[in-house]
Amino acid sequence: IKDSQLTAEAAEKGEYRHYMLKEIYEQPFAISQTLEGRFINNRLQENAFGFNAPDIFDNTKAILILACGTSYHAGLVARYWLEELARVPCSIEVASEFRYRNPVLAPDTLVVTISQSGETADTLAALQEAKKLGAKHSLTICNVPESSLVRESDLVLMTRAGPEIGVASTKAFTTQLVTLMLLVIAMGRRFQLSDIMEAKLTSELFALPGKIEKVLRLDNEIKVLSEQFADKEHALFLGRGTHYPIAMEGALKLKEISYIHAEAYPAGELKHGPLALIDADMPVITVAPNNSLLEKLKSNMQEVSARGGQLIVFMDETLSSSPDSNVQILKIPQVDNEISPIVYTVPLQLLSYHVAVLKGTDVDQPRNLAKSVTVE
Amino acid sequence: IKDSQLTAEAAEKGEYRHYMLKEIYEQPFAISQTLEGRFINNRLQENAFGFNAPDIFDNTKAILILACGTSYHAGLVARYWLEELARVPCSIEVASEFRYRNPVLAPDTLVVTISQSGETADTLAALQEAKKLGAKHSLTICNVPESSLVRESDLVLMTRAGPEIGVASTKAFTTQLVTLMLLVIAMGRRFQLSDIMEAKLTSELFALPGKIEKVLRLDNEIKVLSEQFADKEHALFLGRGTHYPIAMEGALKLKEISYIHAEAYPAGELKHGPLALIDADMPVITVAPNNSLLEKLKSNMQEVSARGGQLIVFMDETLSSSPDSNVQILKIPQVDNEISPIVYTVPLQLLSYHVAVLKGTDVDQPRNLAKSVTVE
Repeated sequence: IKDSQLTAEAAEKGEYRHYMLKEIYEQPFAISQTLEGRFINNRLQENAFGFNAPDIFDNTKAILILACGTSYHAGLVARYWLEELARVPCSIEVASEFRYRNPVLAPDTLVVTISQSGETADTLAALQEAKKLGAKHSLTICNVPESSLVRESDLVLMTRAGPEIGVASTKAFTTQLVTLMLLVIAMGRRFQLSDIMEAKLTSELFALPGKIEKVLRLDNEIKVLSEQFADKEHALFLGRGTHYPIAMEGALKLKEISYIHAEAYPAGELKHGPLALIDADMPVITVAPNNSLLEKLKSNMQEVSARGGQLIVFMDETLSSSPDSNVQILKIPQVDNEISPIVYTVPLQLLSYHVAVLKGTDVDQPRNLAKSVTVE
Repeated sequence: IKDSQLTAEAAEKGEYRHYMLKEIYEQPFAISQTLEGRFINNRLQENAFGFNAPDIFDNTKAILILACGTSYHAGLVARYWLEELARVPCSIEVASEFRYRNPVLAPDTLVVTISQSGETADTLAALQEAKKLGAKHSLTICNVPESSLVRESDLVLMTRAGPEIGVASTKAFTTQLVTLMLLVIAMGRRFQLSDIMEAKLTSELFALPGKIEKVLRLDNEIKVLSEQFADKEHALFLGRGTHYPIAMEGALKLKEISYIHAEAYPAGELKHGPLALIDADMPVITVAPNNSLLEKLKSNMQEVSARGGQLIVFMDETLSSSPDSNVQILKIPQVDNEISPIVYTVPLQLLSYHVAVLKGTDVDQPRNLAKSVTVE
């Protein structure tokens, strides 16, 4: 087993001004490390999850994901993937809610916990609660070997992001998404993931580090964009489908390190309330890849623009866009739809980073927050 | 069948300055109307849902709730109720997300849609999508007879709120919660709702109009409280369990009519990011009834207060509280835990109303919003 970490020098900032920036830039390597040794001849080896993983997966009829904060957002993406790509029934819940509400657990549910530290108090307690409710098997996706969640779970898939020092999680999140996609492949074999789609997902995963390198080259462009936020107190993030949790994660990053009140909405909910907030002081960031939901999202964007809202759109470079003085576009290198949420995470990380630097906050250690939430 | 509405004069403002205020005050009557004729000898008559309701309920193994906006918040409360009180497996999703993500539907799922108008485009399309995915039976909870959702559903339970003119929904929401509790009773008979609990819920429902009358007497006190918000641009609403969706609804109301950027969080998620936002300019409203989660919530409140945040706490009148200059308390008449989310909705409605009046917005017709969202 090679769950070794990036070496000790990885815990120094080197040429970077902040750990967070360094960790954003480490993502292509961290993702390569996370994939390393888990495929043979381009085929996922299920014992990467533990020697008895194939048996447990064989006996799993549904998945329940429990997590908090950024890890919860990773789980939300996985839920879309598991159901849409592989037809695996999946539910997800914030750990602090699950543990106190006496929920109903479906039979033969595999409980999947996600936590960078493996010590998140509510997630650990939620896992214990699920066991009390009859859950027979558990898997944790975690970045710290020998952590409590690793000890308490039957199966373990380590993210190999290396030490993450910045309080705002970056590389832990994207490597969580990568490991969750491995779970989609493994479970999908027992449900309705075709061989062709498995091969496609595998090749998309291996192409991911290169895709992210390309997005990192947009850094300067994003830095310029960030200047518009330095005097703002609000922001709205919109997405649909798998990119809705990415909008949530983008909003959380901006909250955490720039103290801007950013909130995410599934774009379809805009008309049911938040549209009332839109004016020139409330920039709206939309995560708009080139997928089947783009046309729907475009109509949401027009609603915002028509009301004087300033739009910042992260969209596929292959798309054309009509000029509109209320709209600024950042073109993202073309990427396959399945893996796209991982790629679109990166420009949002860079945006929040540059806004925080402009605002002069303590980027790596934002006020009021701790790296691991080990108390309730 | 008596699904008749409040009479024509109900559509006039009368002594009230705004329809919204009138509709808030109509809630005790609207709830009485919604309960009227649906019980015989204090026992819920299941044919209130339709003549074939008992058969359909007998064959239902799980519930899926689809809705948008305020109706979605009602569904979120129902999910807690269905699982905790009656052990009925329940999932819920925003309609605009469900319809496009090709979800997995559990067998023998009863699809429950909630919509004031019965014409919400995404909810209607989501119902149609669920049918395509194999859903055999549907129930709608709706305020407008002969609406599209009523026509397309096997079972119907009308809220009898009467015409709701204010764009921000109030009496439609609380009557939705009442009808959803009737569903909990009906389905609970097939799952694990005891006769004792059924009798308790029934008596709590009939006591509800009186409880709400009492809360309405707090109007002046809430009006005084609202003065603190007139110059604010942000607010955070916290709740746990069934009161988390009530916090969401409180935040949505403030957004809709006062244009304050209010956001709700399940209190346990506070440490995972939003705590970084807390300072003297970000009031925090907590919905803190006297239930088993109160101690947890108190520790969340201390975190806010320790960081200079101003707390406004809606709490049970029977509780004692230690004086803290950062904390203002509004005491709510004592209420049973199950029905408590309906009661705690009302002070939050009044708060958003008075803030909007102070801000001089168009309360009944807030900018950018329409009463029924009949387009995507």
